[in-house]
Parts: sequence; C-alpha cells; structure tokens
Amino acid sequence: MNYTDTICAISTARGGAIGIVRVSGSDSITICDKVFRPHTSDKHLYDYAYRHAIYGTIISPEEDYEVVDEVVVLTYRGPQSYTGEDSVEIMCHGSSYILEKVMSLLTSYGCRLARPGEYTQRAFLNGKMDLSQAEAVADLISSSTAATHRLAMSQMRGGFSRELRILRDKLLKLTSLMELELDFSEEDLEFADRRELKELSSEIATTLSNLIDSFKIGNALKNGVPVAIIGETNVGKSTLLNQLLHDDRAIVSDIHGTTRDTIEDTINIDGTLFRFIDTAGIRETSDKIETIGIDRTFQKIDEAEIVLWVTDATYLKDSFESTYSRIIPHIDDKTLIVVVNKCDLVDETDLYSVFTDLYDHTGINPDETILISAKTGKNINALESKLLDYTNNVSSAEGDVIVTNLRHVEALKSALNSLQASRTALENGLSTDLVAEDLRMCLSSLGEIVGEVTTDEVLGNIFKNFCIGK
Amino acid sequence: MNYTDTICAISTARGGAIGIVRVSGSDSITICDKVFRPHTSDKHLYDYAYRHAIYGTIISPEEDYEVVDEVVVLTYRGPQSYTGEDSVEIMCHGSSYILEKVMSLLTSYGCRLARPGEYTQRAFLNGKMDLSQAEAVADLISSSTAATHRLAMSQMRGGFSRELRILRDKLLKLTSLMELELDFSEEDLEFADRRELKELSSEIATTLSNLIDSFKIGNALKNGVPVAIIGETNVGKSTLLNQLLHDDRAIVSDIHGTTRDTIEDTINIDGTLFRFIDTAGIRETSDKIETIGIDRTFQKIDEAEIVLWVTDATYLKDSFESTYSRIIPHIDDKTLIVVVNKCDLVDETDLYSVFTDLYDHTGINPDETILISAKTGKNINALESKLLDYTNNVSSAEGDVIVTNLRHVEALKSALNSLQASRTALENGLSTDLVAEDLRMCLSSLGEIVGEVTTDEVLGNIFKNFCIGK
Repeated sequence: MNYTDTICAISTARGGAIGIVRVSGSDSITICDKVFRPHTSDKHLYDYAYRHAIYGTIISPEEDYEVVDEVVVLTYRGPQSYTGEDSVEIMCHGSSYILEKVMSLLTSYGCRLARPGEYTQRAFLNGKMDLSQAEAVADLISSSTAATHRLAMSQMRGGFSRELRILRDKLLKLTSLMELELDFSEEDLEFADRRELKELSSEIATTLSNLIDSFKIGNALKNGVPVAIIGETNVGKSTLLNQLLHDDRAIVSDIHGTTRDTIEDTINIDGTLFRFIDTAGIRETSDKIETIGIDRTFQKIDEAEIVLWVTDATYLKDSFESTYSRIIPHIDDKTLIVVVNKCDLVDETDLYSVFTDLYDHTGINPDETILISAKTGKNINALESKLLDYTNNVSSAEGDVIVTNLRHVEALKSALNSLQASRTALENGLSTDLVAEDLRMCLSSLGEIVGEVTTDEVLGNIFKNFCIGK
Repeated sequence: MNYTDTICAISTARGGAIGIVRVSGSDSITICDKVFRPHTSDKHLYDYAYRHAIYGTIISPEEDYEVVDEVVVLTYRGPQSYTGEDSVEIMCHGSSYILEKVMSLLTSYGCRLARPGEYTQRAFLNGKMDLSQAEAVADLISSSTAATHRLAMSQMRGGFSRELRILRDKLLKLTSLMELELDFSEEDLEFADRRELKELSSEIATTLSNLIDSFKIGNALKNGVPVAIIGETNVGKSTLLNQLLHDDRAIVSDIHGTTRDTIEDTINIDGTLFRFIDTAGIRETSDKIETIGIDRTFQKIDEAEIVLWVTDATYLKDSFESTYSRIIPHIDDKTLIVVVNKCDLVDETDLYSVFTDLYDHTGINPDETILISAKTGKNINALESKLLDYTNNVSSAEGDVIVTNLRHVEALKSALNSLQASRTALENGLSTDLVAEDLRMCLSSLGEIVGEVTTDEVLGNIFKNFCIGK
C-alpha cells in the first residue's frame, strides 16, 4: 500500500442534487488546478486562500476545454484537513455523468482511486485520530438510531480513547517501577510498593471487566437489544410481536402451535433498536417439528437480554403454573417482564389475587408485571416504556463508555488475561521480570485498540469495511 | 407560495460518506448559528467571513447541547450565492440519522422544508438565471451521456438564451418601429421600411423554424435516437439487436416470425443514447398476432430517425426485392442504412453484382450499405460508427443551439405562428396596429421561454419535477 499517492473518490451517494469529489495527497491542489478555472479571475487554485469556497468551472483540457460542470471548490492545507494532507473538495451537480467525468479527469492527471476508508485511514496514519476514533467514523455513518449515533459519536470524539489513556497511564507507571527494579536487580531494591501494586492492579482489572461487560449492551444497542417473546401456545405471542412491530410479520391463528420457526425482526423504539424474537409456544407435544421449535425457544431465551413471558389473563393461574418451572431456570441474570395478555376479555380486579399468590411464591417483582391486550393494543405503549427503562438503566449503570466493537472487546479480554497473569505471578512470588513481562503484554493489548501497535493486516481489515470516499 | 421563508433540504442522496444540508433565505445564518459551535473559538456564524469553511459541531440545544455531528459549514451572502439569498451549506457525515436530526433542528428553529427545485426556482426569481437556464439544471443532473450533458450544460450556461435574445432584439426593433407609426397614425408616416420589414421577418421565421426542427434531434438525444430494425423474417434482426445491446434482450430462433412484439431498449454508444426497436419481420402471413406485429413494424418505422433495413446475404437479391417496395414509402426523410447480415456465410465478392443492380434501380447510396455478421459480431463497430455519423451530422447541421424542452418548442411554435400571421397581415395590407399586435404576441411567446412572461402555474409545473435540495 502506498500512502503518498494523491487519491480521489466520489464521497456522496448516487443521485441527489449535489455530488462531492474529494481529493487528498500532496499533489491534490496542483492536479485540481489543471482542470479548474475560476469564474472571475485568472488565478490558479493554489493562489487562493485555503478553506475558501471558489466558484468556477471544471474543464476538460483534452477536449478543447469543454465545460464539464460549474462547481464550488474548497482547498485545504495539511495538516488542517480531515486527512491531515493537502486536500480539495469539488462540489458538483449530482449527475453521475459529471461525477464520473470529473473522476476520469483527475485520474488522467495523476490521481489514483481511493480505497474504501482510505481518507479515514490516512487521517489515522497522519495522527489526526486514533484507531478507535477512526473505527467510530464508520459506525457513525451507518448509525440509524439515536442510541447507536450517541455511542459512535462519543467514541469518535475520543471518549473511549480517554478512558483507555487513563488505564494505560496507570499501568505504565506500575510497569515502569517494576522495570526500574530490574535495572537495580543486584541491589534487590523494591521501588514499587507491593501492596499499592496489588491495589492498583485490582482497580485496573475492575475497569477492564466493566468495559468488557459493557460490550453486551454496546453490541445489543448496535444490533438491536434481543427480546425473546415466550410462553405457552396460543397466549398471543405472535399477535404481540405484530403489535410491537406495527406490522403483520407473524402468522396469527387460533390454532395451538401456529408458530414453529422463530421469527425475528427489529424496530426502533424512541431511538433504541430492539430485536424481537417470537418463539414457538411451550407445551408437551408429539409433533416433531414443533418439538424442535420448542427446543429453539429455550436457545433463544439464552441469547436474549430481555424475556417477555406472555401469559393468558383468561386462565391466569394455570397459565402461570404450566410454564413457570420450565422458564425460570433459563432467566438467569436476564430482565424478565411478565406480560398478562388478553386483558380485554377479563375484569382486571379478578386478577389481583392470582398476582399476590404469584409474587409470594416466585419472588417476581410486581413492577415486572404488565397487563395488556395485544389484540386491541391496550398498554402496548407502557410495555415499550418498560423496554426502554431497561436500556436506560443498563447504559447509565455502565458509565459513559460502552464498548461496541468486537475487535476492542477481544483486545480488552487479552489485556485482562495478561493483567491477571501478572497478579498471579506477583502473589506466587515469581521474579519481577516475569511480572513486568505480563504487564508489558497487557499494555500492548490496550495499545492495539487505539492503534499504537498494529500491523498492516489489522489496518486492512478495519478499513476495508468502510464506504469509498470516507 | 412564499419565497421569503428560510428553507432547508438534504441536497445529497441517501448513503455515502458525506451528506450536505442546504439552507437558504434571510434567516439562514442566524438559524444555523443556534445549532452550530465552531471548534476553536466562541465566535458566532455571522462573525465569520463568507464562503469560508468553518469546522465545528452541530449541537442540540434542547438535549443538553448533545453533539449531533462534527461538520464543515460554509456561509454565503446574497446575492453571491446560488439562490441569490443568504445561504448556509452544512457538510455532515452521511448518516441518515444525522441528516434527519440536523433537518429537525433547523425546522425547530424556523426553517421550512424546501419544495422540489425550490433553490433553483429562487435563483430564477432572484435573477440569478433565466427560466431556460433553470430548466437546464434539472436536465444537467439527470444527464447520463456526453451528448445530453453537453446540451444541458450549453443551455444552463445561457447558449439558448443568447440565441433567443438576438431574435427578440431584432423583433423588438421591428415592433417598436411599427408602434411608433401608430403614435403618428394621423400623419400616415412609415418609419419601418416595408421591404426591410419583410426580409427581417423572414429571417426570424427561418431561425424559429430551425430551432423548432432542432427539437427532433434534441429530443432524440435526450430520450435516445430511435433506430428501427426492420426486414424480412429470419434475416437476424433480433440477433443484431442483442449484438448492439451487448445483451440477450430478444429471443432468437431459426423459426420464421419469432419476434411478434416490438422490443425496445436503449444503449449509450460513445456518449450518445440510441433507442433500438426490434420489429416483427415483414412477410405475408395468416397468423393474426403476427399480422398485428407487422402493422406495428410500419408504425415504428414512422417513429424512427434511423432505419436499419436488415437483409440476408445468403439470398441477397430475393431478400432485397421481397421487401424493398413495401419499405421505401415509409422511409421519407429518415436515414436508411442497408444492413447485409450473415456475411460470414458467403463470399463477399459474390455480392457486388447484386449491389450494382440495387444502386442502379433504387438510388440507394453505396455508403448506406454495410456488410455484417450479427452472429459473429463482424463489422458491428462499423455499424455503430455509421449511427454516430448520423447524430454528428445532424447536430452540426443544426448549429450550436438544440432545443430539448417540449415547453420551449411549444413556445417557439406559437411565436412562429404569430410571426406568420403578422407577415400575412402585412402582405394583405392590413392596418399597422393588427400587424404590431401579432408581433407583440410573438415577442410574448419568446419571453415565456426565458421566464419574462410566466404565471405561477407554469413555474409550479416546471419546478415540481426537480429533485428536492436543488
């Protein structure tokens, strides 16, 4: 790969009134000057002030200076640009003919087509942002909900990087002290107070664990918080799914066991993406396909963050008792919401004695119960609020920084492993150089996240998923 | 309609690395200032130099100043802007979430969503361009070939408007002289030399006719030059269509009469769009559907600009004679190219005697004959060159200005009608006021094209077909 070429790309999508061609690299201004004529002067592009919108025409010198388009051009002087290099932005009319023509002119004068993500990659290589910030640019562009937008924006603005820097500074101090001891190993000095060392190490371990745990919610927010809809057959799970999705996604009938395959779909509720999973109803059955479906239901419970246990108000006590013991072992640390459906068919006051009994026997929290009618839509809004409560609670509990990137969580895990190895070594009284070696590995893993330690292969993998022109 | 509102729109297509939000109107800078914070100063947006790229963040004041995006902003001071009004361009990351969020912030502070084409409409209303130039903007954006791009660019840059202005100036001089006579009607003076008047009038009529005629090629270039492929059954018309389209568009078989429906498709050959029309083979048949197909073939010949008459080299003489008399009456002023197909199956020297005979009997020009093999692709390039010759000849013959817009050609026709009425009146010695009245109507029709005489309804019709954001 060559990062000294001058590159060009169409940075806007096809169609639309305006299209932008971006050029970056040391020759960008002189190349663009060959195909640009200002409207009101004979000046060259490099005679203008940087970051000043210049009106003019793109002309084709080889074709008798035919006018390709009337444009606005901005020049940037590195390092005061996105990539940190000299750059030019050409704002054209959004015709694909014009955009292709401008690109072919630029390449004929020495530009090369940019690879996906190459602008951001250059910004990283030129120190305009660290790797985790660069990765956030792709997340930002693809973000479609308020929650994912907020995460990506915080990461791009360096929130996660700051958190990491604090961790690394602490760790570096610790490691340096240990290594200083190595220099004076013959004198058997201890610069690092072992008790302080253990405390600091345990503090760092906690922070690492919290960051790793935050990936669960980070990933959920990015791909949709998984919500399993479970319960007996015919309690209205599919009707509830359709209500939540505002759509006729699942087939609904009065016949027990209508849903066999699990049905998944996502919807944006007030800025958070939820992934609802309708499952086969739980019952004893001799139907083989249905049995496979029921097995999958339990798998889906395991994958979910939130479980909506749907019960039937018309025979509430039996409905609870028939599935309770089979469901509870799977709930674990998930959020359980008990949904009492078909409340349009009963007098709600009749239900309270059943609830009291249920709360006593199971320890289920009354706040976790909600009375709805999936058919009429009653209380669906309240159910949506309950779902949002969950994500609000989790995101505030985890603090500001939430890890959303699989590469980051893997690096954090390997940092935690190295750190724990160093703690074990310390406790077992192993020699200082072994402890220091583990700490160095921990530092190196953290460095991978911001890109202080990376290989070309890692960089290639990160940027290949970007869109061209960014 | 209200043109004093400040309007906003997303001017780029969905997707892509960069998105642009455009704001225009007297409040655009103060509204944008409410949601924009520069990176490196406390200045307000209106404190910056115009047309200077400002780095900063879009923030949401109602949501605790949460950062929506990091952006580059350009401000423009009317009349030095596209619309002629104060304007702002916000270059964001191309996430639809971000773009929608910026739009909702702007509208919450007083912007209104722009209607399709409203930026260009305002540019017209503020005298930044005339109506025919404004219309060319939409053509420019939708242009997909070099030919249509060139036409739209020439019109946007005022080529057509200049031609019209010359016409109108001449006409106005004429009309003024006539009207001066009216002022002195009691004295029976003739300011306008009647002979000069007739000459000028005839010159203008010729220019108008040429412009009207140019619409045929203008429209053809815009929608594809219509080329009918005709001939007997089984001479390889569908194979030729597939060759020209580089595609298996038409079903090909050895069975006579395979093609019954006419098949149309367009392809860009060296910057010019051609619309090829494969037709049913011409033969005597009792098949009802085929008969209808053959009738359509003759209709399609009438619609075409170029006719490719495909004949079969393996029985060339018979192939000519069987269809010649039926085709020729339909050729009229169209360009006829005689295509001798299946030349891979014969010795070409054997064909020359047939040609000599043909040229003698029919007056067909040898240059209009081409020997090909649709099956092997032989000489298809030469055929394409012949097609391009046609458009090059026509466009240079018509001069630089080619009318491409139906509204324009209608206005030119009504101008020509009025002009001819005035000439008849003049010849029949009708009173000067009647002649002047016709000339006024002619001027008014020409004025409609550049927008000097327009109604809101006409404007609405023109701009409703624009994309939003232009």
